[in-house]
Amino acid sequence: MAAGKHEQEIEVRGHLIDSMILTRIFDHVMDLKGDFQVLEFTVGKKKKDPSYARLLVRGKDEEHLERIIEAVYREGAQPVSVQEAMLVPASSDCVMPDDFYSTTNNPTQVFYAGQWIQVQNMMMDKCIVVDTRSKTAECKMIRDLKKGDMIVVGERGVKITPQERPREGVDIFQFMSSSSSSERPTQHIARKVADDIYNTKKQGGKIIVVSGPVLVHSGASEALARLIRMGYIDGLLAGNAIAVHDVENALLGTSLGMHVRDGTLAVRGHRNHMQAINEVFKAGGLRAMVEKKILKSGVMYECIKNDVPFVLAGSIRDDGPIPDVVTDVVEAQRRYKKVLKGARMVLMFSTMLHSIAVGNMLPSSVKVVAVDISQPVVTKLVDRGTAQAVGIVTDVGAFLPIVADHLEKMARHRQ
Amino acid sequence: MAAGKHEQEIEVRGHLIDSMILTRIFDHVMDLKGDFQVLEFTVGKKKKDPSYARLLVRGKDEEHLERIIEAVYREGAQPVSVQEAMLVPASSDCVMPDDFYSTTNNPTQVFYAGQWIQVQNMMMDKCIVVDTRSKTAECKMIRDLKKGDMIVVGERGVKITPQERPREGVDIFQFMSSSSSSERPTQHIARKVADDIYNTKKQGGKIIVVSGPVLVHSGASEALARLIRMGYIDGLLAGNAIAVHDVENALLGTSLGMHVRDGTLAVRGHRNHMQAINEVFKAGGLRAMVEKKILKSGVMYECIKNDVPFVLAGSIRDDGPIPDVVTDVVEAQRRYKKVLKGARMVLMFSTMLHSIAVGNMLPSSVKVVAVDISQPVVTKLVDRGTAQAVGIVTDVGAFLPIVADHLEKMARHRQ
Amino acid sequence: MAAGKHEQEIEVRGHLIDSMILTRIFDHVMDLKGDFQVLEFTVGKKKKDPSYARLLVRGKDEEHLERIIEAVYREGAQPVSVQEAMLVPASSDCVMPDDFYSTTNNPTQVFYAGQWIQVQNMMMDKCIVVDTRSKTAECKMIRDLKKGDMIVVGERGVKITPQERPREGVDIFQFMSSSSSSERPTQHIARKVADDIYNTKKQGGKIIVVSGPVLVHSGASEALARLIRMGYIDGLLAGNAIAVHDVENALLGTSLGMHVRDGTLAVRGHRNHMQAINEVFKAGGLRAMVEKKILKSGVMYECIKNDVPFVLAGSIRDDGPIPDVVTDVVEAQRRYKKVLKGARMVLMFSTMLHSIAVGNMLPSSVKVVAVDISQPVVTKLVDRGTAQAVGIVTDVGAFLPIVADHLEKMARHRQ
Amino acid sequence: MAAGKHEQEIEVRGHLIDSMILTRIFDHVMDLKGDFQVLEFTVGKKKKDPSYARLLVRGKDEEHLERIIEAVYREGAQPVSVQEAMLVPASSDCVMPDDFYSTTNNPTQVFYAGQWIQVQNMMMDKCIVVDTRSKTAECKMIRDLKKGDMIVVGERGVKITPQERPREGVDIFQFMSSSSSSERPTQHIARKVADDIYNTKKQGGKIIVVSGPVLVHSGASEALARLIRMGYIDGLLAGNAIAVHDVENALLGTSLGMHVRDGTLAVRGHRNHMQAINEVFKAGGLRAMVEKKILKSGVMYECIKNDVPFVLAGSIRDDGPIPDVVTDVVEAQRRYKKVLKGARMVLMFSTMLHSIAVGNMLPSSVKVVAVDISQPVVTKLVDRGTAQAVGIVTDVGAFLPIVADHLEKMARHRQ
Repeated sequence: MAAGKHEQEIEVRGHLIDSMILTRIFDHVMDLKGDFQVLEFTVGKKKKDPSYARLLVRGKDEEHLERIIEAVYREGAQPVSVQEAMLVPASSDCVMPDDFYSTTNNPTQVFYAGQWIQVQNMMMDKCIVVDTRSKTAECKMIRDLKKGDMIVVGERGVKITPQERPREGVDIFQFMSSSSSSERPTQHIARKVADDIYNTKKQGGKIIVVSGPVLVHSGASEALARLIRMGYIDGLLAGNAIAVHDVENALLGTSLGMHVRDGTLAVRGHRNHMQAINEVFKAGGLRAMVEKKILKSGVMYECIKNDVPFVLAGSIRDDGPIPDVVTDVVEAQRRYKKVLKGARMVLMFSTMLHSIAVGNMLPSSVKVVAVDISQPVVTKLVDRGTAQAVGIVTDVGAFLPIVADHLEKMARHRQ
Repeated sequence: MAAGKHEQEIEVRGHLIDSMILTRIFDHVMDLKGDFQVLEFTVGKKKKDPSYARLLVRGKDEEHLERIIEAVYREGAQPVSVQEAMLVPASSDCVMPDDFYSTTNNPTQVFYAGQWIQVQNMMMDKCIVVDTRSKTAECKMIRDLKKGDMIVVGERGVKITPQERPREGVDIFQFMSSSSSSERPTQHIARKVADDIYNTKKQGGKIIVVSGPVLVHSGASEALARLIRMGYIDGLLAGNAIAVHDVENALLGTSLGMHVRDGTLAVRGHRNHMQAINEVFKAGGLRAMVEKKILKSGVMYECIKNDVPFVLAGSIRDDGPIPDVVTDVVEAQRRYKKVLKGARMVLMFSTMLHSIAVGNMLPSSVKVVAVDISQPVVTKLVDRGTAQAVGIVTDVGAFLPIVADHLEKMARHRQ
Repeated sequence: MAAGKHEQEIEVRGHLIDSMILTRIFDHVMDLKGDFQVLEFTVGKKKKDPSYARLLVRGKDEEHLERIIEAVYREGAQPVSVQEAMLVPASSDCVMPDDFYSTTNNPTQVFYAGQWIQVQNMMMDKCIVVDTRSKTAECKMIRDLKKGDMIVVGERGVKITPQERPREGVDIFQFMSSSSSSERPTQHIARKVADDIYNTKKQGGKIIVVSGPVLVHSGASEALARLIRMGYIDGLLAGNAIAVHDVENALLGTSLGMHVRDGTLAVRGHRNHMQAINEVFKAGGLRAMVEKKILKSGVMYECIKNDVPFVLAGSIRDDGPIPDVVTDVVEAQRRYKKVLKGARMVLMFSTMLHSIAVGNMLPSSVKVVAVDISQPVVTKLVDRGTAQAVGIVTDVGAFLPIVADHLEKMARHRQ
Repeated sequence: MAAGKHEQEIEVRGHLIDSMILTRIFDHVMDLKGDFQVLEFTVGKKKKDPSYARLLVRGKDEEHLERIIEAVYREGAQPVSVQEAMLVPASSDCVMPDDFYSTTNNPTQVFYAGQWIQVQNMMMDKCIVVDTRSKTAECKMIRDLKKGDMIVVGERGVKITPQERPREGVDIFQFMSSSSSSERPTQHIARKVADDIYNTKKQGGKIIVVSGPVLVHSGASEALARLIRMGYIDGLLAGNAIAVHDVENALLGTSLGMHVRDGTLAVRGHRNHMQAINEVFKAGGLRAMVEKKILKSGVMYECIKNDVPFVLAGSIRDDGPIPDVVTDVVEAQRRYKKVLKGARMVLMFSTMLHSIAVGNMLPSSVKVVAVDISQPVVTKLVDRGTAQAVGIVTDVGAFLPIVADHLEKMARHRQ
């Protein structure tokens, strides 16, 4: 009889089997040593039909049941009778209530004042602030919280729509099925990525590039400059190093003193890096360098010429950093998010730091392609970042030129 | 006859053969397609005697000779007749003169007003500012330059003392001969590192730790806490993540939701990370948490209790970041340098970002031990950081406890 | 009506949701652009109940249907009405019929002469030979096929039991959930592996070690020697290198000329490797060395003293190889398989070559623990070898001594 | 006075400083705690002049002196008065005398019967057998030794010519200065390697390829097929896997069931690998497949069609292996060496096993280019193999097609 009290009816809809939602719900209950009974289960008769399940979940005591319920809610399950989300005001700036609801990066709704409200600006590991007057809700970083902000606590009244596995498409995401591998036909994959860029753009999608400095050393920055010139890139998120190397390359033909053209070392080349930084300070910044016609090529030049917004986030290892770098990291995060707003696709090249940062800011619906020569880096990006990411283990110096060439070829053919 | 004009006599002293100084000088001349003649060469007769060489270096034209001369000066060579260093004032804040002298991380002297002045605060890739009144000189970051600062230009009047290879010692640095390897007896190396820590400390040397968050996941943070408690560590340089994980571990027993004790996943553990951050904000910072007895164990607790200074540098991927983090990276660099001042030994654990940052701030005389499970990371640290670094490719979670155990054993034996 | 002809009713039983069997069946049908209808689906009411599904699968034509059917059979599905397996005799030695059934490493049954026969000696990527008189079946390597062997062709009459996910256990396999990670508490995992070894042995399970030569360099061979002495190891599968290094260590205290005790280099140590090989030839083999009391310690010594069978498989990079090495790789494979027969657990240390070889020889029910410092190696082992493998990214030189110490401690406590 | 007895005069000639020979000699004496005095030192006055040094080396006792002398002989030093090499007959087949001289991979001479004899067939870690009648000497593997073979013992009468560092060239070896890096302009390096292949071939040099199976997965085997067709390759050394994948690709368009054209998975593709093996057995071997026009494209096809010798060495992880594989590894080593005889350049693609095997068989004068996506693999190849190797960390699937394209372009331009 006591047991009877610690149980709850939940329901869930969608591609329960195909997208493994039911598997994960069963997993959670069993991992937590709970119990369940399937009360109703209708599987989609045909392959596109959604399924429906109604389960009775049982815990050892109320707290145990709570835990199980919290876990299965995260997979998209809901109590059969909807409950209002609980709100608690922030007691001071930058402080969440103890039992704050911690977000995932999946589309999320909050049941408030008798209706489901879509949460704006979805990111993972944040809290949800509800504007009780306008009946809107948004994800907020802890540093942006104001005293009195109404914050969702507990797990009730929050509904998640887990990302369903893509099925009937033909893009790189179906193709790679979210795994990363160095044992794939590189040239074909490069063309496939080019196709995805082309199609995303054609449908009006916004494409953002995140890149590390290896792009310049490996000779691939010229290819990125071409992508920007062709109009495929809508924003660049990076750090101080890529900008400095790019300027060094544009002014002196070297990257950290190595001629990018042929890999030989320049005489007194160790100075080139610092000289490039000095030139930026002398001009007063990258934009000024372009206006004064000092900077006439490269990735940063193309961004400025083509009005592609860029944000350079500072880091502890920066040389300089140049005046264009946002040295306060919290401010840099805000600017990154602004550029990412509405992005459909993010390309990440050879940078773990900036890629993981961006991964944390993205809703699960944004397509992510991460390219790096190190398999552990790609794996970590995919693990941490977002499950939807596709990792490509290759040499960006050989890979990106193939992508750019293919896009140029397509442009010619389709003219 | 024209050729006769483009030549210069240079001299160099020290362990020219043993430390490969002469080899590198010959290399530079030949790489630059210059020519040379050995005018005088006295090799140390016995193994500890310094050698002396006087060479005539020849270039195709004056500019060519200049280039060669610049290159060989970097190896410690000097013109036979000493020349004064040339100084040019900074035209505005944060701007160096065009031909600024770019530093190495080796001990450096400037010949000014008839005397050799030791450059303070040596770091690589900076410029040298001479205080003409006090006759002192120091390395300065570009962001710290003031208009009117007198900056060394060209290569004349600057003398470098290249790091000689250690020979007659018994520490890990002789032992490993600067290479990194995963094919070494791990347990012995751990004890060797413990011996070096012990001996450095005994001689009054300052030891700084640079660490990434893997330390907490891998269960090694308890060992670092012991090292701090035993008094071996004089400073901690890190980022937001290690502090957050450490607090999460102290408060909730988990790191990113995984129980550090046994590696199992905590229920609703995804929240723990954000909850730890929230607790720090609620208390107002780490120190306040310790004072209020909320934080009672871990690496950050031991730092605060034992008055070990720490600097947490912000990065674009920070969650939070907590109030203790220095979010402006230029300010964080200044604080890192302050803690590093006078360090004899730096231990780097599983963080490429902070390790390379610190490597750039260190003179070549500071001993560096870098521990990471990834060989490319260790290689890059050694390549970039400083030639004197020793890289150990191992699992810090298994390695650091052996170091701490050995130090404890030594403490007991020597009581 | 035409469509009506290209369809088939199939059924499947087991933990369809929990072990994702149904997900994979749906996947296959959709990947192949087929169609399906769920005719009947009873989900296990409680968590341990098996589920049952009956589906109507449809293809565009007969060949298309065949392809789909083949794919779903691999997941354990069966036609509603059982059919006899088709057998075709081998036309000559070492040649399979064109449409041979290619095995998985899952338990497999063949429906022959009106009954289900269990296939013996399961391995992946082999064919199944049925002895029509004795009504037995076994997996055979292509090189072992004899003319006239009756070989299963097509996919009919073959039933697979996919490995179900372990659930209610407490060993390392539930704990790690088949993933590999370098971000786990190393010391705890080492103790967990020790517990598994202890429990496997206690239940009478056979434990085999596969190891590369890094074990000796990293100082871990002493720990393996202890495991053997304690009676935990029932077989060693390796190559020439580990034996040679182990002998070099036992005779001269070095591994490739490096003192294993302290990592320093021995004088004239480059000879030690070849000298060890020469000593083995001189004695006539490892066993003779033990009998003549030349070899008195180490891994090979303990194997011989404790009657633990070992097989050293030759490879193209062998120095020597010593007389004990099986230089013919096909013969070495046969001997490996003999030692592996009936194994419950396989421990793989730092060798991709031998580990993948062994992975291919194991049925999916054998537990595999793979330890390596390189994450890509561990990932590849897990991907190729067998889904049931657990990968541990750590330094075997630090890891294995913890395992051995823990087993010794357990032995003392339980006396 | 006692000390006086334990000393010896040695001399050495060559680019002592430039090629660091003297540095290494000093190193050895000091590492062994010996003492030395420089009696005479004439440094080459101009950059191409050889230097000469005469040293008095001192040990604590005769054995200590012996050790030092042995070490410095390995660097090319010689006693001032030449001594005959000592020979001892092998006491039985496959057994060397105890004090056998263990070879390096440098050009080596033996002073026998009053003359310096060049040792043929130089490889490292072997012994030297002198034919006392014909006054010839050669390197021999231990398994090839016959009872009575006259084998050099001790270090006397053996002279090594250490590899001097390349200086005035323009090929990839000067360019890369023996280091490996992933931070180089990939496309340029690919063209540079193409130039070296072109020039080596033009000068009549023999080029051998060593390759792993990744070549096929990554889509690069088509590029290797082109290189063979153009006549650039004189031999292929590999294992079973590349041949099987190549046949699978030629017959079915897949590699391990993945379409090489576009990376998608083939239906029932898991069988393709075994089917390819079966087809080779059915035909009786690769050559028979070509003759019967079953195999009509790919790497193996081009080898056979263009009379390029190939050796497939067996390994423990082989599936099959196909009839063409040399399953005995000692026999495979002999055949590898035969193909390598007289090679000028060896290209190694994505295989640690075969690359290290080949590295051990090569004299130090053969140029080696090793391409792999994993930096540790490249580093290990360079460390173990041969100091002259250049490592390129890149994706062979993107790299090799650039090399092949560039060679084709050169062919067109130079027609």
